[in-house]
Amino acid sequence: MSIKPKVLWIGSRAHAKASWDKLSEIADVQFCTSKNRSEFINDLKGKYKDVVSIGRTAELDVTGRFDEELVSHFPSSVKTVSHCGAGYDQVDVEPLLKRNIQLSNITTPVEAPTADTAIFLLLSALRNFQESHDLLMKGEWERTGVKSAGAKYGHLPSYKTVGILGMGGIGRCIRDRLKPFGFKDLYYHNRSKLSPELEGDCKYLSYDDLLSKSDIIIVSVPLNKKTHHLINKEAMDKMKDDVIIINTARGAVIDEKTLTEYLKSGKVGFLGTDVFEFEPKVDQELLDLPNCVSLPHMGTHTVESQVEMEDFVIQNIETFLKTGKVKTVVPEMYNVDFKHEALI
Amino acid sequence: MSIKPKVLWIGSRAHAKASWDKLSEIADVQFCTSKNRSEFINDLKGKYKDVVSIGRTAELDVTGRFDEELVSHFPSSVKTVSHCGAGYDQVDVEPLLKRNIQLSNITTPVEAPTADTAIFLLLSALRNFQESHDLLMKGEWERTGVKSAGAKYGHLPSYKTVGILGMGGIGRCIRDRLKPFGFKDLYYHNRSKLSPELEGDCKYLSYDDLLSKSDIIIVSVPLNKKTHHLINKEAMDKMKDDVIIINTARGAVIDEKTLTEYLKSGKVGFLGTDVFEFEPKVDQELLDLPNCVSLPHMGTHTVESQVEMEDFVIQNIETFLKTGKVKTVVPEMYNVDFKHEALI
Repeated sequence: MSIKPKVLWIGSRAHAKASWDKLSEIADVQFCTSKNRSEFINDLKGKYKDVVSIGRTAELDVTGRFDEELVSHFPSSVKTVSHCGAGYDQVDVEPLLKRNIQLSNITTPVEAPTADTAIFLLLSALRNFQESHDLLMKGEWERTGVKSAGAKYGHLPSYKTVGILGMGGIGRCIRDRLKPFGFKDLYYHNRSKLSPELEGDCKYLSYDDLLSKSDIIIVSVPLNKKTHHLINKEAMDKMKDDVIIINTARGAVIDEKTLTEYLKSGKVGFLGTDVFEFEPKVDQELLDLPNCVSLPHMGTHTVESQVEMEDFVIQNIETFLKTGKVKTVVPEMYNVDFKHEALI
Repeated sequence: MSIKPKVLWIGSRAHAKASWDKLSEIADVQFCTSKNRSEFINDLKGKYKDVVSIGRTAELDVTGRFDEELVSHFPSSVKTVSHCGAGYDQVDVEPLLKRNIQLSNITTPVEAPTADTAIFLLLSALRNFQESHDLLMKGEWERTGVKSAGAKYGHLPSYKTVGILGMGGIGRCIRDRLKPFGFKDLYYHNRSKLSPELEGDCKYLSYDDLLSKSDIIIVSVPLNKKTHHLINKEAMDKMKDDVIIINTARGAVIDEKTLTEYLKSGKVGFLGTDVFEFEPKVDQELLDLPNCVSLPHMGTHTVESQVEMEDFVIQNIETFLKTGKVKTVVPEMYNVDFKHEALI
């Protein structure tokens, strides 16, 4: 019997035990015990020196970012890194490419729960539900007897135009969920126009047209060098007054400082956000604005998603071991031939 | 030129000015100036003695309930009452029937905004969004650095079965909005099974089966004598442990005291509610439960809905004046021949 290829999992693992057990039949699965980055780097020369595939959660507390420095310490045996998240901004693609290492992310399992979160934030912002709940909790309804505790009136979808910025899997799931709400128009912008089949009832607009025509803009792009501060002052100046911005992507896609100013001035009418530029550090001034509806990065925070995502990482590792290719390589590597071979 | 028929509007009127002006071309529109119930009763014998149609908001502060006593003071000229709400539990049907007075309510304009509210509450309860927002606001995310500020994990729709109790216009709008979320199963119960066309992809269940098979129960029935405390201890005992109950109908459809006990014990996992049994008086103990997601009756609280609903009342009055029949008579009067004639 040949020696099983070594697989390393970094991060907590409360879920999907059955799947790990199954992977252990074909791989020597190790769960990272290093306590911090320097210990991890040391272990890469020691007990993890033969590892071929690394799986990692989005947590950074043990290893920190997978950046050029950390990747330089990987043993030459490493062929794949599988990140347990849709956004992989905690992992630098270039150093992995240089070392001929494949990177996979999570696709389908994150789409539905993230889209559900976007719909919640959109409804909350459009209808002023967060503030009305706060008024209720403060006893304003009983005290004043005023209709809806005196909350400002919200708006009906049928009078509002939505622009989805980024029409990947999550964007399309958002589009599908928005449809029965009867919005006036549904637009999208994407790096490239989609096929009519994938577009559905959503109409393509240029970036500038999407910014200027939408009453509600939903940000659903990955964070990378090109999209960092994509929504900056210049972009916000092109938007309608009183626009609603929904962000379930990454905080740093938006220039949060300018956004806070624009929320205070009323140029931006409402922000509904699950993400922050410097999370978990969050600007209290932003949080306290009555037109900021907020969640602490809850996009995939469901019991079932944790299992589905961890399973998806395991599938990526298993597919690599059996075929030499991970199942869902990241877009930056679509056209790269790694020339890896199956290991089992 | 003949004298125009008199129409009386009771309640605030911030909206739809254009429509009131248009109605004034064919009717003598008066806006109630009475300050309280006894003054109103007095005015019914005086300046309102010739009124044929009464329109009224859901507010009760001037007249109080339209009950047997109040209706007994109506002049014999009154032929119609048009209520500016879907639920007309503030108006007693029997005394109006006895006096041969038609009652109309609001149908289509309330459906979308109420359904939107139900979807918000459902997502909030399913995903534990209210508690996670509270943890964020308390600074728990930054303080602990823990994922999602330490909020409990929520659940994915694809693992959950929804039962809609009451499949009128609002129930069907809720059904339509739920569809793209990919719930495991969508069931409904209604006084009578709908036609396959109206049912859509929603399967009919008996009342008891709906209670016992649903992970999430959405209450969407009107409040009347038959539905008062429809969801009582006996009904809740038939539900699954950890059931989520969503209520955008009326508070008194549920026995709130028992519900509070069951939320505390965990028998009922989550309540998402826009309505309360004794609103605007609300039990603080209920509000403070971490598994109670709440809004202060925001169902139709949008700028556009106020206009659309007031327009709908005006259409009912206009249709009556022109045909002798209001446009949307309430179900209890479907088969009544009032023998009213057109007045213009």
